[in-house]
Amino acid sequence: MLTTRNKTRKVKIGKLTIGGGSPIAVQSMTKTKTADVAATVRQIHELEAAGCQIVRCAVPDKASALALKEIKQQINIPLVADIHFNAEHAVIAAEAGVDKLRINPGNIGSLEKVKSVVAAAKEHGIPIRIGVNSGSLEKEILKASGGHVTAEGLVKSALKNIEILEKLDFNDIVISIKATSIPMTIAAYDLLARKVYHPLHIGITEAGIPGTGSIRSAVGLGAILNAGLGDTLRVSLTGDPVEEVRVGYEILKALELTFHGITIISCPTCGRTDIDVASIAREVETRTRRIKQPLKVAIMGCEVNGPGEAADADIGLAGGNGMGLIFREGKVVRQVEETEMVDALVDEIESMAIK
Amino acid sequence: MLTTRNKTRKVKIGKLTIGGGSPIAVQSMTKTKTADVAATVRQIHELEAAGCQIVRCAVPDKASALALKEIKQQINIPLVADIHFNAEHAVIAAEAGVDKLRINPGNIGSLEKVKSVVAAAKEHGIPIRIGVNSGSLEKEILKASGGHVTAEGLVKSALKNIEILEKLDFNDIVISIKATSIPMTIAAYDLLARKVYHPLHIGITEAGIPGTGSIRSAVGLGAILNAGLGDTLRVSLTGDPVEEVRVGYEILKALELTFHGITIISCPTCGRTDIDVASIAREVETRTRRIKQPLKVAIMGCEVNGPGEAADADIGLAGGNGMGLIFREGKVVRQVEETEMVDALVDEIESMAIK
Repeated sequence: MLTTRNKTRKVKIGKLTIGGGSPIAVQSMTKTKTADVAATVRQIHELEAAGCQIVRCAVPDKASALALKEIKQQINIPLVADIHFNAEHAVIAAEAGVDKLRINPGNIGSLEKVKSVVAAAKEHGIPIRIGVNSGSLEKEILKASGGHVTAEGLVKSALKNIEILEKLDFNDIVISIKATSIPMTIAAYDLLARKVYHPLHIGITEAGIPGTGSIRSAVGLGAILNAGLGDTLRVSLTGDPVEEVRVGYEILKALELTFHGITIISCPTCGRTDIDVASIAREVETRTRRIKQPLKVAIMGCEVNGPGEAADADIGLAGGNGMGLIFREGKVVRQVEETEMVDALVDEIESMAIK
Repeated sequence: MLTTRNKTRKVKIGKLTIGGGSPIAVQSMTKTKTADVAATVRQIHELEAAGCQIVRCAVPDKASALALKEIKQQINIPLVADIHFNAEHAVIAAEAGVDKLRINPGNIGSLEKVKSVVAAAKEHGIPIRIGVNSGSLEKEILKASGGHVTAEGLVKSALKNIEILEKLDFNDIVISIKATSIPMTIAAYDLLARKVYHPLHIGITEAGIPGTGSIRSAVGLGAILNAGLGDTLRVSLTGDPVEEVRVGYEILKALELTFHGITIISCPTCGRTDIDVASIAREVETRTRRIKQPLKVAIMGCEVNGPGEAADADIGLAGGNGMGLIFREGKVVRQVEETEMVDALVDEIESMAIK
């Protein structure tokens, strides 16, 4: 396992920089009809409030491409146009002021059309993300591997698309390789990172509905990030995009690649537990959700690991027999009854977050 | 990243073998009072139905130790007694017929007491798991690293405990090293696996309540498993232990380390989507939950990645404009209206699962 992050070149997406050691950016994608400007802007504002740093909109038609200008004027985070096949839509999007194009040059058609997209990207100073996906791999690459998607085939597709852009002297590139198979995705990013210096956008495509999709994404993105790879990530869930952002941050927090907000360590409870750890943890999590400072809060129900974990966290509760000790930076600061535990913990968290 | 699994020696826990290339076993722990035999047995039966392969009960007192005999007689999966400090409870548990003891010899007290536990384990032919935990690390090890828990300190504690057992000619050992810090846990298992040949029980301790705890567990256990380590796992969640088992299997399925049941690949939906992918995916997942055969089902809402993914899965739906194509093993078998999609998909899944 690498302990240092893979070095990539820096790419600017609006005011945000990804790659080259920048913090890993969390992004999402709207699920509204892009041509419905009001609904799309509303969803982007929800995403911004959740901490989303880059937002992407699908551009399936000209009306969607034309709507991007108005959307861009009403939002505060970089906007990416997600385009398939259509050079004209990409040019309209660039003129609309989007901060990045997602388009695979190999799918656009003639070289003239590719040139028009690259010219528009150069003129407006915006990068292009090449997004290779297991569901839309080129037929000739599929054929070469017996009709099956492979990690090598995905990388071959990425390199082919990169070559098209580089031959046109365009280097402002971000790359993603997404497969529904998680081991294949991990292997593909590992292979790709050895061959290119462009920043990597990572994701597990079509991960599913939140309950299972967040677990699949955490396994896949966690393994890729733990190997030192990834400059920006998107969690793909069939559901509210705000949940994609929340899961993205949880993955980064788990690997200590970002620190923001409260992290609650709570014991699974067992036959030794005397206090209602689950309801205390749920209530504390809900009541401290708006706090942005990174604080580790331990909520423990017994004497075995309780005092140790409680003392190791910024703020801790070790409960038992209806009583609890509240720890702050390793020292016991209060002893409280079970009914007061939530209030006492929230008090301590808030006072520590303010200072 | 390793592509082969780390070699460990085989250890038998009742009729189940872990280590040495055996399938990775999913375990959990009861959250009832162990002395309440009826409640504990009821929870173990729920865990068995969810696919739990090993169950552990806390033994905080003599009444709990004495209850194990009755519990063991009423359940069908191997039973582990979780003991801290108390040699007498361990001996009672061994006599009660449990299939494994979890106890740290370094915490038991005198050498005589340790010998009594080892003698009981030998007599009954059961293994001992040494469970090092960041919340209960030995004071002298903490002191040596400036009062902080470190990966090296956790490994030192494990090796010290292993040495105590090996000096008494006891080798039937399983080891776990759990820390609340995920990078530290990953580093500790990596370090430990280079030094011992005993099977590894893996887990992220006190991961939290299900929404975030399952993500933290998936990141941590995913990275450890992806590095080729881990012979049995437990997901620790503050909540229903059945959810621990479900999350455990989802993690193994994500890494293709086990295959059982339906895996739904569903697109995150975007401005291109014309069908209600989320509600279709949720309903199909619910209606096919009891199917044990491994089948990959793709539910896709557009023409970009839809047909490719749908054709690549065992069964797929690619929808758009209120109509959907149903794929089976890569071939279109039916065209259906949106209102018929769920029924048609479930039909196809059931007929494929039966054959």
